[in-house]
Amino acid sequence: MEQVTIGMIGGGTVGSGVYNALKLNRALMERRLGIKINLLKIAVKAFDEPRPYPIPRGLLTTNWREVVEDPRVQIIIELVGGTTIARDIILTALKLGKPVITANKALLSAYGEELFSAAATNNANIYYEASVAGGIPIIKAIREAFVGNRITHIYGIVNGTCNYILTKMKEEGSDFAQVLEQAQKQGYAEAEPSLDVDGWDSMHKIGILASLAHGFWVSPEKIFVEGIRPVSLMDIRFAEQLGYTIKLLGIVKQIDSTASKGKSSRIQVSVYPALIPSSHVLARINDIFNAVFVRGNIVGETLFFGRGAGKDATASAVLSDIADAALDLKYETKSRLRPFVSHEKNGEIVPIGEVKSQYYIRLAVVDKPGVLAKISTIFGDSKISIASVIQPESRETEIVPLIMMIHSAPNSAMEKALSKIEKLPVVKSKPVMLRVENF
Amino acid sequence: MEQVTIGMIGGGTVGSGVYNALKLNRALMERRLGIKINLLKIAVKAFDEPRPYPIPRGLLTTNWREVVEDPRVQIIIELVGGTTIARDIILTALKLGKPVITANKALLSAYGEELFSAAATNNANIYYEASVAGGIPIIKAIREAFVGNRITHIYGIVNGTCNYILTKMKEEGSDFAQVLEQAQKQGYAEAEPSLDVDGWDSMHKIGILASLAHGFWVSPEKIFVEGIRPVSLMDIRFAEQLGYTIKLLGIVKQIDSTASKGKSSRIQVSVYPALIPSSHVLARINDIFNAVFVRGNIVGETLFFGRGAGKDATASAVLSDIADAALDLKYETKSRLRPFVSHEKNGEIVPIGEVKSQYYIRLAVVDKPGVLAKISTIFGDSKISIASVIQPESRETEIVPLIMMIHSAPNSAMEKALSKIEKLPVVKSKPVMLRVENF
Repeated sequence: MEQVTIGMIGGGTVGSGVYNALKLNRALMERRLGIKINLLKIAVKAFDEPRPYPIPRGLLTTNWREVVEDPRVQIIIELVGGTTIARDIILTALKLGKPVITANKALLSAYGEELFSAAATNNANIYYEASVAGGIPIIKAIREAFVGNRITHIYGIVNGTCNYILTKMKEEGSDFAQVLEQAQKQGYAEAEPSLDVDGWDSMHKIGILASLAHGFWVSPEKIFVEGIRPVSLMDIRFAEQLGYTIKLLGIVKQIDSTASKGKSSRIQVSVYPALIPSSHVLARINDIFNAVFVRGNIVGETLFFGRGAGKDATASAVLSDIADAALDLKYETKSRLRPFVSHEKNGEIVPIGEVKSQYYIRLAVVDKPGVLAKISTIFGDSKISIASVIQPESRETEIVPLIMMIHSAPNSAMEKALSKIEKLPVVKSKPVMLRVENF
Repeated sequence: MEQVTIGMIGGGTVGSGVYNALKLNRALMERRLGIKINLLKIAVKAFDEPRPYPIPRGLLTTNWREVVEDPRVQIIIELVGGTTIARDIILTALKLGKPVITANKALLSAYGEELFSAAATNNANIYYEASVAGGIPIIKAIREAFVGNRITHIYGIVNGTCNYILTKMKEEGSDFAQVLEQAQKQGYAEAEPSLDVDGWDSMHKIGILASLAHGFWVSPEKIFVEGIRPVSLMDIRFAEQLGYTIKLLGIVKQIDSTASKGKSSRIQVSVYPALIPSSHVLARINDIFNAVFVRGNIVGETLFFGRGAGKDATASAVLSDIADAALDLKYETKSRLRPFVSHEKNGEIVPIGEVKSQYYIRLAVVDKPGVLAKISTIFGDSKISIASVIQPESRETEIVPLIMMIHSAPNSAMEKALSKIEKLPVVKSKPVMLRVENF
């Protein structure tokens, strides 16, 4: 049986997960592949850092160059995270013509084009199934299984921390701050939670999926991002009454119908908390689970569900990439599937202002007659139509919530209308605006 | 750009779907792959048979050998169905060293080993993503994405007709016969529905998934199969009260814990209607949709959802196989992924009698004291424990239903106990027994 020799940089959560998964399943995997897998060396930050699964001392080094530059090592797995050393590691490996496996979405988001171009120049390859949605094989699905589809819609719950927080807020009736604290204690949220709760991590992932689906590289600065901090328990409850559930979604939507005729590809790429119908399968994806809903013009609706993070689920994706990289080495087909194929010259991201959405609006208004008329007039003047209004019964307070569901309108028009509404003397706080996705 | 030339046998529902999908998306697919795709010829039963998408007359022939034996044709797509001519077509193509793409689960179920061996002998390959669950890339997921996982559980809703019937029975409160008739009118069920409603189609599919996951070929005669005819509206309603939904499941379960240590692989492979918790995501899969729940020892729980049949969804899977076959031709790696890898020498199917299940039992009993005692005694003597009992209030009839939920017990013990119970004078009809899957 042939053998491939692998070196890994990173021995923390995911790294030790990969070590453990190989320990458990290496023999099975080798029989399936017909290739022996030899994990020769692992570079770590410190020998004695705490890790979920122990790694024998003999495999460890603290010098990543020792791994990458070892002539016996044929495939490099980069699991250090971040965008500095990780970039050096990958570029060094590629320059040596060594294929790289990475779970690093932040790095791909920021430096994808540079890395892919380095892979092409050096006849190497980059495998990154583990970078989006952990154990869910969504990269393989989009690149390979749906290669014959124009992908018209992607809706992804791709951040487990946010999904956990929104689920607990709804189930326990707690507010954001409380649940965040609880999630931090349980290890589901970082001490500095911004990467997750402000939507940046989802942005990294949805940008990668958008790029693969639409064939032009989507720069992160073109992605509109809103996190879950603006979602209050009150909004979760009103949404529930209206038959909706609030989820943080990464969204990739083909805007132009002409695109289906092969003309051009104008797409929306955004991350925001959205109201989705509670009957939709995505609304049932709870806790730390991830799911990606994909619609193709041939396959129709599909959904992929699983664990989006964690030592084991992510390791499963890394093992899948090890298999592909090993086969590509064995058959000398290092560029069989290039890490990114630019196949849409005229692709463009539609700015959020031009995107049409439906909306949920919550206002805090003075409880007296004529208020609704004033607000409706502003919407009417902006050619925005109201689908429904809920005014919960006043509990003898002077300021009451007013909920409005709004038909499809451009985001720029909505923003202008809301800034006018905010200035009305009867409106007592900044309007809450959440988008509604009815699929 | 290199080119591959393809010939197709079958121009009916799926065949014309593939033709149409290529017409729509060929240019996109070619840009993604870097390979031109030339569909040269299509063999059909009759030039003027009705088909959902028209195919130009110039592409058609009624002689399949003309397609398979054309030296220009490099890849054969077999979409005629059945197990006679389809087998000839595939064997003929393989003997010519031509890779074959097929959606034919019945053929693979019956002749898989013969066909795979012919592929190996002739250095060709068989691609069959379209054979299980239509547009859902479940073959790719199990073979490639989860290559590093021991697959401990598969629960598949893999027959759209049955899922449609069970969904409508529940939603509309209709009985099986009514809904079947309606499904036949709408084209969701065949005039001869046995293949679907008696579970045979699910058996073909789950046998293929079981074989791939566990590495030994599962003969169909070893699969326990029960269709949906025994499911009555009354059972759907009682299940609902108990918090369950009834679905026809294809089930592959690892039985032995020793298997996880790589010792052996004793598995249950069955098809039967089962009560599953209504809160589980599989219970939400309705109408004609399919879904496959897969648990791996590394990745944990995953689920794949989509359309399991139909001209377009199945075409999407065929296009995915065209891409893989085209890449394998381009890179001369025809056996990169063999159609089946035997990797478990000691694999064995546990007979249903030895499988432990939980159960839902419905009896029709005489409405008088002491009945429950008699039944409980038989269960007790058989070491079967009752989890709960529901005796709906009598509506002044003499015969009343008695519902029992039963803890885990071997199927053989349950069968024996039920045959004793059936003979009790107070039991007035054949007991209804459905299995319960709590995941």
